[in-house]
Amino acid sequence: MTHPDFQVWAKYHRQQVEDALDSWMPQPSVTGLGQAMRYAVMGGGKRLRPLLVFASAKASDGLVTQANVQAVLRAAVAVELIHAYSLVHDDMPCMDNDVLRRGKPTVHISFGQAHAMLVGDALQALAFEVLTAEKITSKEMISEAISQARLCRLLAQAAGEAGMVGGQAIDLNSVKKPIDLLTLEEMHCRKTGALINASLLMGAAANGVAEETAIWQVLNEFGQALGLAFQIVDDILDTTSTSSTLGKTPGKDFFAQKPTYVSLLGIEGAKVKVLQLQAQALNALEKITWPMPISDNPLVWLMDYVVNREN
Amino acid sequence: MTHPDFQVWAKYHRQQVEDALDSWMPQPSVTGLGQAMRYAVMGGGKRLRPLLVFASAKASDGLVTQANVQAVLRAAVAVELIHAYSLVHDDMPCMDNDVLRRGKPTVHISFGQAHAMLVGDALQALAFEVLTAEKITSKEMISEAISQARLCRLLAQAAGEAGMVGGQAIDLNSVKKPIDLLTLEEMHCRKTGALINASLLMGAAANGVAEETAIWQVLNEFGQALGLAFQIVDDILDTTSTSSTLGKTPGKDFFAQKPTYVSLLGIEGAKVKVLQLQAQALNALEKITWPMPISDNPLVWLMDYVVNREN
Repeated sequence: MTHPDFQVWAKYHRQQVEDALDSWMPQPSVTGLGQAMRYAVMGGGKRLRPLLVFASAKASDGLVTQANVQAVLRAAVAVELIHAYSLVHDDMPCMDNDVLRRGKPTVHISFGQAHAMLVGDALQALAFEVLTAEKITSKEMISEAISQARLCRLLAQAAGEAGMVGGQAIDLNSVKKPIDLLTLEEMHCRKTGALINASLLMGAAANGVAEETAIWQVLNEFGQALGLAFQIVDDILDTTSTSSTLGKTPGKDFFAQKPTYVSLLGIEGAKVKVLQLQAQALNALEKITWPMPISDNPLVWLMDYVVNREN
Repeated sequence: MTHPDFQVWAKYHRQQVEDALDSWMPQPSVTGLGQAMRYAVMGGGKRLRPLLVFASAKASDGLVTQANVQAVLRAAVAVELIHAYSLVHDDMPCMDNDVLRRGKPTVHISFGQAHAMLVGDALQALAFEVLTAEKITSKEMISEAISQARLCRLLAQAAGEAGMVGGQAIDLNSVKKPIDLLTLEEMHCRKTGALINASLLMGAAANGVAEETAIWQVLNEFGQALGLAFQIVDDILDTTSTSSTLGKTPGKDFFAQKPTYVSLLGIEGAKVKVLQLQAQALNALEKITWPMPISDNPLVWLMDYVVNREN
């Protein structure tokens, strides 16, 4: 059961990120690129990655000297832009060839393949533009400069070959092939886990949490467990849900003969694995003292949400 | 005629960027993504954008308190990675559908479309990873942090919707349509000019040149003229050259019924326009005193090179 405060907190931050994303969308133009970018980004999605940014920022608020609200919001927008671009490219005919996303026709169906590719390319660049939106004009802006540099580094590492795109390549390579649990885990750690983990770390980095701190280590452990749990739940929902609940085509991996946690562990095995990861994530959190009781910790809320979500 | 010192200088820096690019390529893996990234980036190209980074850094060396050699090199690598990714995506069937690039089969021909898309996506992320490669660990690294934040901002703005990708969208939209010189100019200012200009500004920014300085303004003017001249020469070569000299398919724009400077101004008119832009660029340079005589200024060398190049 999700904590009642979670709903209020999530609603507030979803609206905040929705407004910020909206303000970053380019003007409509004759080429239609701006319109297609807006279509790809706005009005849909759980905004899980932005919520993870806000959650780790909030959880670390009491642990830093001064929270940086604007940097946190920009980090939240940036991770969602990277996520949105990856969906647009993944749905294209040369990849997953999907026609439905967030309950709407995919970008390449609505705007054509060339535009879909450009939308993805532009959204990735925009993510880094958002992270560096506050112009550094003097040495007095040292904290802001450090925050920007660190956020760009974290996002670039998570999005690239060592992270998301590399995981996508393993995914492509695993169609119709028997792969073992270890390879499947590596694939998901990179394809989905890297950006989820980066979202948590970026929320902390935006608030000035350093990498040598205990909280950084804990967020890393928590994020890795959460990322994997998210993916296994995805696999379970892909088997058990309908397209109207999911907002995308279910059973895709099954029909594409892609290995999943469900195909390797069975539904029950996959559910057990999710609960183990949840316990592991909560154990990690208990290693340090947070500024709030466990039941008010938004990181705990989000773990619950990920485990119990229906889409 | 190119300055004899240009050859030595360009050879040295091309080798430097070649080595640095090489060191940034991921290890080969079972998915082939690392191999395809290497294929897309290594062993080809004029490396014009890195040379522009080195040129503006060298030209500004005497004007800053301390040159930052490593930041300059990283900026050079980053602009080339963005350029390389854009070529891979542009060549894909849903865009220009080209089979030859730098004298080799294009990435999607050699590795398939899905890999070509992922290669481009990963190279864009890698550009920002390279820019932020030096980890900021303390407030003593203030200059490095500021440099990283500024470089990411310049690159992201040039690469995205307001720059390169937006120009590409205008290009897509202009096939088989009558467009005027002004729209053609806007298209090229964004599609090619933005990254060329950013290369010059990033070379200066990496060396700590501030945006309010006269040199920044001059580089901006110089870069805009150079970028446009580069594109018009491209259009001229597309009409007059062969695939063995160009390393890519000539006459593409003509057959695709895309408007070019040659189709709008004629060959002679296009050549006159190039010389006008060269004069404009050199006039801009004369507005400030450089640390070297005009004949030794690498910015002048590069303008000559762009105007007189054969591929």
